[in-house]
Amino acid sequence: MTTYDLIVIGAGPGGYGAAIRAAQLGLKTAVVEKDQPGGVCLNWGCIPSKNLIHQAELFHSLHELEAVGVSVDRSTLDYSAVQANSRKVVKTLTGGVRGLLKKNKVALLKGTARLTDAGEVTLDNGDVLSAKHILVATGSRPMQVPGFECDEDKVLSSTGILALTRLPAELVVLGGGAIGCEFAYVMNAFGVKVTLVEALDHLLPTEDFEVCAVLEACFKRAGIEVLTNTRALSLDRSGEKLQVTLQSADEELVREADKALVVFGRVPNTGDLGLAELGVQLDERGYVNVGDYNQTTAAGIYAIGDITRTPALAHVASAEGEMAVEHMAGHAPRLTGVDAAKVPSAVYCEPQVAGFGLREDEAGERKLKKSVFSYSGAGKSIAVGKPDGLVKILCDAETDEILGAHIVGHNATEIIHELLLAASAELLPEDLCSTIHAHPTLSEAILEAARGINGAPIHA
Amino acid sequence: MTTYDLIVIGAGPGGYGAAIRAAQLGLKTAVVEKDQPGGVCLNWGCIPSKNLIHQAELFHSLHELEAVGVSVDRSTLDYSAVQANSRKVVKTLTGGVRGLLKKNKVALLKGTARLTDAGEVTLDNGDVLSAKHILVATGSRPMQVPGFECDEDKVLSSTGILALTRLPAELVVLGGGAIGCEFAYVMNAFGVKVTLVEALDHLLPTEDFEVCAVLEACFKRAGIEVLTNTRALSLDRSGEKLQVTLQSADEELVREADKALVVFGRVPNTGDLGLAELGVQLDERGYVNVGDYNQTTAAGIYAIGDITRTPALAHVASAEGEMAVEHMAGHAPRLTGVDAAKVPSAVYCEPQVAGFGLREDEAGERKLKKSVFSYSGAGKSIAVGKPDGLVKILCDAETDEILGAHIVGHNATEIIHELLLAASAELLPEDLCSTIHAHPTLSEAILEAARGINGAPIHA
Repeated sequence: MTTYDLIVIGAGPGGYGAAIRAAQLGLKTAVVEKDQPGGVCLNWGCIPSKNLIHQAELFHSLHELEAVGVSVDRSTLDYSAVQANSRKVVKTLTGGVRGLLKKNKVALLKGTARLTDAGEVTLDNGDVLSAKHILVATGSRPMQVPGFECDEDKVLSSTGILALTRLPAELVVLGGGAIGCEFAYVMNAFGVKVTLVEALDHLLPTEDFEVCAVLEACFKRAGIEVLTNTRALSLDRSGEKLQVTLQSADEELVREADKALVVFGRVPNTGDLGLAELGVQLDERGYVNVGDYNQTTAAGIYAIGDITRTPALAHVASAEGEMAVEHMAGHAPRLTGVDAAKVPSAVYCEPQVAGFGLREDEAGERKLKKSVFSYSGAGKSIAVGKPDGLVKILCDAETDEILGAHIVGHNATEIIHELLLAASAELLPEDLCSTIHAHPTLSEAILEAARGINGAPIHA
Repeated sequence: MTTYDLIVIGAGPGGYGAAIRAAQLGLKTAVVEKDQPGGVCLNWGCIPSKNLIHQAELFHSLHELEAVGVSVDRSTLDYSAVQANSRKVVKTLTGGVRGLLKKNKVALLKGTARLTDAGEVTLDNGDVLSAKHILVATGSRPMQVPGFECDEDKVLSSTGILALTRLPAELVVLGGGAIGCEFAYVMNAFGVKVTLVEALDHLLPTEDFEVCAVLEACFKRAGIEVLTNTRALSLDRSGEKLQVTLQSADEELVREADKALVVFGRVPNTGDLGLAELGVQLDERGYVNVGDYNQTTAAGIYAIGDITRTPALAHVASAEGEMAVEHMAGHAPRLTGVDAAKVPSAVYCEPQVAGFGLREDEAGERKLKKSVFSYSGAGKSIAVGKPDGLVKILCDAETDEILGAHIVGHNATEIIHELLLAASAELLPEDLCSTIHAHPTLSEAILEAARGINGAPIHA
C-alpha cells in the first residue's frame, strides 16, 4: 500500500492545481484520474470551446475581408478540420498538465477511485492507497432531463457538440446559459440556422439584464432565433429531423432541426465515491457540505469545485483547491472561503459577457449609485468594428463601495479584471478615475463608467 | 470681442477632453482648431492606425482559415478600400467629438490661434477672443531630419503612410519605436517586404528588453527584416527605387525600397503661438515648462500634452487637460502632476506591448524581486493560437511595492490595466493573487506572474 500525504481524486482544474500547490508546499501527492488530466474544462469544456469560438470569429470576420476585395469561398470549409484543431489544442494542454505534474513530482494514477476507509482510497484496479488528506474534486456532468436525454447523436450535450465533425443545417439549443450562448454563437457564425431557447426572461439568467439585452440584440441581428420565456415541452426523435415542441408565454411552437444541444445544467459527481459512508455530509441534491477551507464533515477529507455549492466554474475550483491544500499543509490560506460576490463570470461568445457581484435586479431596498457607459464611446471599439457593448458599475450610494460590475462587449472577459481587483481590494471608483488608462483601449470604457459614479464621463 | 472663461488651443485628445471637462465644471469654453477635432491622434495617428492593424490582423489570420479548407484569393485585395475604412472610422469619431462639444456647449472655432496679449487670443481670420484662462494643447509634429525629410511621396511620415492607398512592394521603416513597429506589422501582414531599422540595441527602446526580445522574434518569424544597432546614413531618392544606406555595428548596408517610413520622433508645436512674448518659459527644445497642474510661467496660461516634457501620449494629454481645468476651476484635481511611473505605454502590433514604471535595466543598485510568466502557461493563449508573450513584474525586494510591469502578447494593451491599477493604488502582488481570475483568460498570466513574486506559479 503506497502512502501519500495527499490523494486528490479528479485531475480537473481544481484537482490538478491543488496537487501542484500541495507539492510546492512539500506534500507527497498523488492525483487519481479516470480519463485525461485537465478534466471536463480542459478536455470537453472551456478550452476546446474557446478554440472553436476563436475559429468561428475568424470565419465570421470573412465578410470584413470580402468588403476590401478578398475573394473567399466559404463552401469549401471543412468543419472536421475545425474540430480537429480544437482537439489538437486539448492534446497540447493535457500534455502540459502531465508535464507540470511530473515536474512537481505528483503521481498521476489512472483509474476510478473510491474512499474505502478513513485515509484510504481504492482504485478500480484493486490498488489501495493511503493518505493523511484526501481532496475530492470529481466535478460534474450534464444534467439529464426525462425526454431530453442526450444520445450524443441527434441530441447532444456540451460534450457531444464538441465531438461533432460535421455541421448540422439546423440546431436547436435548449438552455440559454453560458454554454448555450457560446455554442449558439459558434454554430451561427459557421452558417448553421440556430434557435436558442431559454425558459427564463433573458439569456444568461444569472447575469445582469441590461448586459444581456445587448447580447440578445447582437444575437438576433446575427440571425439567431432567440426565444426567451419559452420552455421545451418535448423532443420527438422518431423522424429524420428532430421535432422540438416549445411553449412560449402565449403559444406552442414547433421547431425542426438536425441536432439539438441540451444544456439544462450540471449535476455533481458524488455518487459511488463512498463519501456518505465515511461521514461526509451531502445535501439533498448531492452537493458536499464544506467549511471555510473546504473541509468536509469527515476529518481529513476536503471537497472542492463543482461538487460543492459555489459557482460551478473552473476558477472557483482552482481557488478552492489552493485554499484547501494550504489549509491542510498548515500554510495560511490566501482566501477564507470563496466570496461569491468576487467571483467573475465569463461568457466567451461575441460580444463577450463578464461580471461579478450584485446585479441591479437584486438590489431590493438597497440604495445604489449606477453608472453605465457604452462601448461606442471608447474610440477603440469603433476602430476595431466592435461598438456593441457597455460597462455597468453598481456602487453603494453612501460609501461608493463597488458592489457589482457587468460588462458586455469585445474582450469583456479580460477587462473585467481591473474592476474585479478594485472590488476585491476595496478600492473605489475614484481609484479607477485616477489611474491613467491607455488610449485607445476598451478599458477606457471602465474609466468612463467609473467617472459616471460621482460625476460625468467625458465621452457621453 | 467674445469673452470666455477658457479658450483651449488645439482640439486633440488633450484639448477637446479638457474643454468638455471645463464645461462640466461650469466654465464657458471655446476650443480653437485649425483642422478637424480629435487632433493627430484621432485623425492621423492612434485611431486610423488601430483600424489598419485590425484589418491587417484579419488578413493575416486568413492562413488559419485556409488550413480548414476555406478557399481564399488574397491577390484581389483592394488596399484603397482598407485605407478608406480607416478614414470612415476617423470620420465617425470626429463627428462624435463635434457632437460632444456641441452637447457640452463648447464653441468649436476653426482657425489658427496666437496669444496676442494677457487673456487674449487672435485667430487667423482676425477675430479676437478674450478669456480668463488659456490652455495650450497644440501637440506635436514629425521630426524632420536633414536628408530624411518626408516628401509624403516616396519618403513618408506617419501621416503619409496613413494616406497611402496602394501597397508598396518594399518598405524600409527608419525608427523602431511604437509607430515604426505598428506599421512594420501592418505592412508585413499585407504582404509588403519590410525592413525595420533601429539605431539602438532593441526595438521599442523605451520598453523592457525582455519584452522586446519576444516582439523581435515574432517579427523575424513573420518575415520582417529587423536591423537593430543600425543607423540610417542616407537616403537616395534619385532612382526609381529609394536607396537607403545603413550602418550596422560592423558593415554598411544598402536596402532598396519603393517607400520609406521615417519615424525618428516628434517635436512640439510651440512656434508662432506668441508664448515667449507673454512670459511662457520654453526649454531649449521648444517644450513648455509647467508646474504640478500644468500652469505655465505666465499667469492664466496652461499647457498640456506633447508640448510639455511628459510622455507624448494621448492619454497623458487627456489626464493633464483634466487636471489643468480642474485646477483653474478651483475644483480639487484628482491628480497632482502626472507620475511618469504610472503612465502606461501601449504598442498595438501583434503581439502587443504594454507596460509602465521601472524597467529591469534601470534598476541599478536597487534590489528587486522579479517574476516572469510566459503566455503559453495560460491555456487561453493556446486556445486562441497566441502563445507568444510574457508578463513581467518588478517589485521592491523589501516592500513588494510594484515598481514596474511589462507585457508582450495578445491583448497586452488591455490586460495591463489590472497591474496598473494595482500599482497606482499601491496594492501588492498578494492582492492580485487573492483575486480570483476568470478561466480561461490571458489575465491568468498576470495572476501567475504575481504568484511568482513570493512563491511559484502553478503553470510553470
